Amino acid sequence: MTGPALRCAQCAISLHSDMTTLACPECARPLEVDYPGHDYGSAVSPMPATRQYLDATTLGEGNTPIVSLPSIGSQLGLESLGAKLEYINPTGSFKDRGTAVVLAMALQQGVSEVVEDSSGNAGASVSAYAGRAGMEAHIFAPSSAPQAKLRQIVAYGAQVHSIPGPREATTAAAVDYATEHSLVYASHVLSPYFVEGTKLFAYEVFRQTAGHLPQDIIMPVGNGSLLLGALKGFTELKRGGHIAEIPRLHAVQARNVMPIAAAYWGLDGTPPTAGTVAGGIAVGTPARLEEIVAAIKTTGGTATAVEENDILTWRDTLAQTEGVYAEPTSAAAFAGLARLAEKGIIQPDASVLVPITGFGLKDTG
Amino acid sequence: MTGPALRCAQCAISLHSDMTTLACPECARPLEVDYPGHDYGSAVSPMPATRQYLDATTLGEGNTPIVSLPSIGSQLGLESLGAKLEYINPTGSFKDRGTAVVLAMALQQGVSEVVEDSSGNAGASVSAYAGRAGMEAHIFAPSSAPQAKLRQIVAYGAQVHSIPGPREATTAAAVDYATEHSLVYASHVLSPYFVEGTKLFAYEVFRQTAGHLPQDIIMPVGNGSLLLGALKGFTELKRGGHIAEIPRLHAVQARNVMPIAAAYWGLDGTPPTAGTVAGGIAVGTPARLEEIVAAIKTTGGTATAVEENDILTWRDTLAQTEGVYAEPTSAAAFAGLARLAEKGIIQPDASVLVPITGFGLKDTG
Repeated sequence: MTGPALRCAQCAISLHSDMTTLACPECARPLEVDYPGHDYGSAVSPMPATRQYLDATTLGEGNTPIVSLPSIGSQLGLESLGAKLEYINPTGSFKDRGTAVVLAMALQQGVSEVVEDSSGNAGASVSAYAGRAGMEAHIFAPSSAPQAKLRQIVAYGAQVHSIPGPREATTAAAVDYATEHSLVYASHVLSPYFVEGTKLFAYEVFRQTAGHLPQDIIMPVGNGSLLLGALKGFTELKRGGHIAEIPRLHAVQARNVMPIAAAYWGLDGTPPTAGTVAGGIAVGTPARLEEIVAAIKTTGGTATAVEENDILTWRDTLAQTEGVYAEPTSAAAFAGLARLAEKGIIQPDASVLVPITGFGLKDTG
Repeated sequence: MTGPALRCAQCAISLHSDMTTLACPECARPLEVDYPGHDYGSAVSPMPATRQYLDATTLGEGNTPIVSLPSIGSQLGLESLGAKLEYINPTGSFKDRGTAVVLAMALQQGVSEVVEDSSGNAGASVSAYAGRAGMEAHIFAPSSAPQAKLRQIVAYGAQVHSIPGPREATTAAAVDYATEHSLVYASHVLSPYFVEGTKLFAYEVFRQTAGHLPQDIIMPVGNGSLLLGALKGFTELKRGGHIAEIPRLHAVQARNVMPIAAAYWGLDGTPPTAGTVAGGIAVGTPARLEEIVAAIKTTGGTATAVEENDILTWRDTLAQTEGVYAEPTSAAAFAGLARLAEKGIIQPDASVLVPITGFGLKDTG
C-alpha cells in the first residue's frame, strides 16, 4: 500500500484512507494515519490530503505565536515560562488545526454533508470550514453550551441541533443522526485526520524554538485531541532524528470532571462528575481514555485535577498580568501548573510551555 | 538629530520623540515619526522603540494570514479576491499592531498610567497591552458600546469609564481626565506611534505576495489608523525601491456616518449622522479627516458609503460562504467593494485585498 493509510496500533491492521472508518474492525479502537515509506528525515510533516484540497479548505490556521509570561513565571518561581497562543486561529481555538485537515479529506473524498458533536469550539470550527468547503454541516451541541459559542456556530451557517442532558447524550444523538441519514460523522474526537492537523503544533514548537524544545508542556485535556496530536508530531520528529527527546506532556482536568486524572492515578471506576466552568474539558467518558493515559506516561508527564475557583482566578491573572484573555478551559492549565511547580514535579529551571487553547470571548465563564 | 523624531508634514518642524506630543506646536496637525538617515533600501521597517521594549510588550501581533475568497470573488465577478485576516490578532482586532508599538514607547519612556478612548477594539487592545506592561489603563468608552467589547476591556483589568452621548463626548472626557490627572493620552487616533505599528500591515502584504501587491485594497475607515499606517508602510517600501507603485486604498463608510466619503466627494458641510451597526467606523468627526482624504486621493483610491442592511448581508455571506466571521464594521468593506465592482471602478481582472479588521465574536451586530 502506498500513500497514507489507516492503521490500528493494537492489531497492526492497515486500511485504505477513508472518511467513514473511525475504528479498527477487529478491536474497535481508534485508528491513526500511517505513511508507509515516508522519509521522516525531511522534517516536513506528511499530510493525509493532497495540497490541492488543503489549499481549498485552509483559513490560514496555525503559525500561532509563542510569548513569554514573565509575571506568572515569576509568581510560580519558574525561570522560563511561555504560552503558545492557540486561540489566535481563524475561529478562535486550536480546533482549527484539526478541522482544516478533516475537511480537506472530506472534500477530497467527495463528501457534501457532515455531522459533528461539540460543546462549542469544535462545532464553530467545523461549521466555518464546512461552509468554506461548500458542505452542509450538522452540529450537535449540548443545550448548556455558552451562548457566544452557539451564536458563532449559527453564524457560519451550520444547522445546530441542541441536545439536553449530559455531554454523552450529544454524541449519541450525532452518531444516530449520521447513521440514520448515511452522513459522514466528522468527529474531532475519533477521526484519525483531526490528529494530523493538531500534530503541526509540535512541528511549530520545534521550528519556533529552533529545536530547543520546552521540557514540559501543560495542557487542558478533555478528549485529548491536542495532546495526542502533539505526541504524534513529536514522535515523527524523533523518528526523523530531529529531536532526541519528547517534552513531558502533562494533562490538566477540572476536579469536577476528572476521568483521565483518575485513570492516570489508578483510581477505581469512573469518578462522578459535577458542573465545571471549564466546558471544553467537561468530558466524563473520553473515547480515547486509554490512549491519552498511555501518551502522558510515555512522555513522563503527569495528570492533575484542579478546583473551580482556581481556574477562574488564573483566568483573571492571565488576562490582567499577561494580556492573554483565555477561556476558563485554557486557564485550568495554569492551576495545574501551579500545583506541579509547588510539588517540585516541575523544577524552577525547567522550560515550560502552555498552549492557550480558546479565546476568552467565546466563553466568559 | 539622530534616531526617531516627530515631524509635522505641513510645517516641516522636527521634534524629539515623546509620548506626550500629539500635535504640531505650530499648526496643531497630527505628527508623524521620521527616521533621519535610515536606509530604506534594507526592506526592514524602522521602528520608534528599541527591540528591548518591543519584545517586552509584544503579544505576537501581526503575521496574519491572507486567504482567498473564491465564493465572493465569483459572486462579484472578480478573478483575484483575498482577505487579510487582521482579526487573528491577540485581542481580536488589527488594533493590536498599533497598540504594541504605542505601549512599547510608553514603557521605554517610563510611563506607568495611560488614558485611551475607544468604541471597543482599541480599548480592549490598550487594556491588554497595558496590563502586560505593568501599567494602569483608563479606557473611556461610549455607554452604547457592545457588551462583549466592554467585558473584554474589563477582563484585562483596565478601569472603564462609561460615557453617555455621542462618540465625541467619550474623547472629550478622556482628554479632560488625562489633563486633570497629568496622565499620558495614548490615543490610537492621534499618537504618531500607533501608525508605526499599523504600517507593518503593508510590509507583510509585500512579503506575503512576494512583491506582487494587490492593485486595490478596500478598508472600513473610521479614524483611518489602518489606512494611514498602510500608506506609510507602502510609502517606505517605495522609497526603498522595493515597489514601483502603491496599491489604490479605498475607504468604505456607513452611509449613516460618512464624513470621509462626504469630504472625498466634496459635499458641503459635515453630513448628519445616524446609528450604524458598524460601530468601529461610527466616527462623525475624524481628527485626521484631511490626511485620510489626501491619502485616498494620493493612491488613486475612492471613498464609498454603504447601507445598513448591505453590511449585515455581507457579514452573513462572508461567514457562511468563506468561513470568516467578521464584525459588521469589517463586513462594510464588502458592501463597498460590491459597489466599486458594479461601477467598474474595480475591474474584474484586478487583484483585490480586503483586511478583516475585527472578530465577529466581539460585536454580533
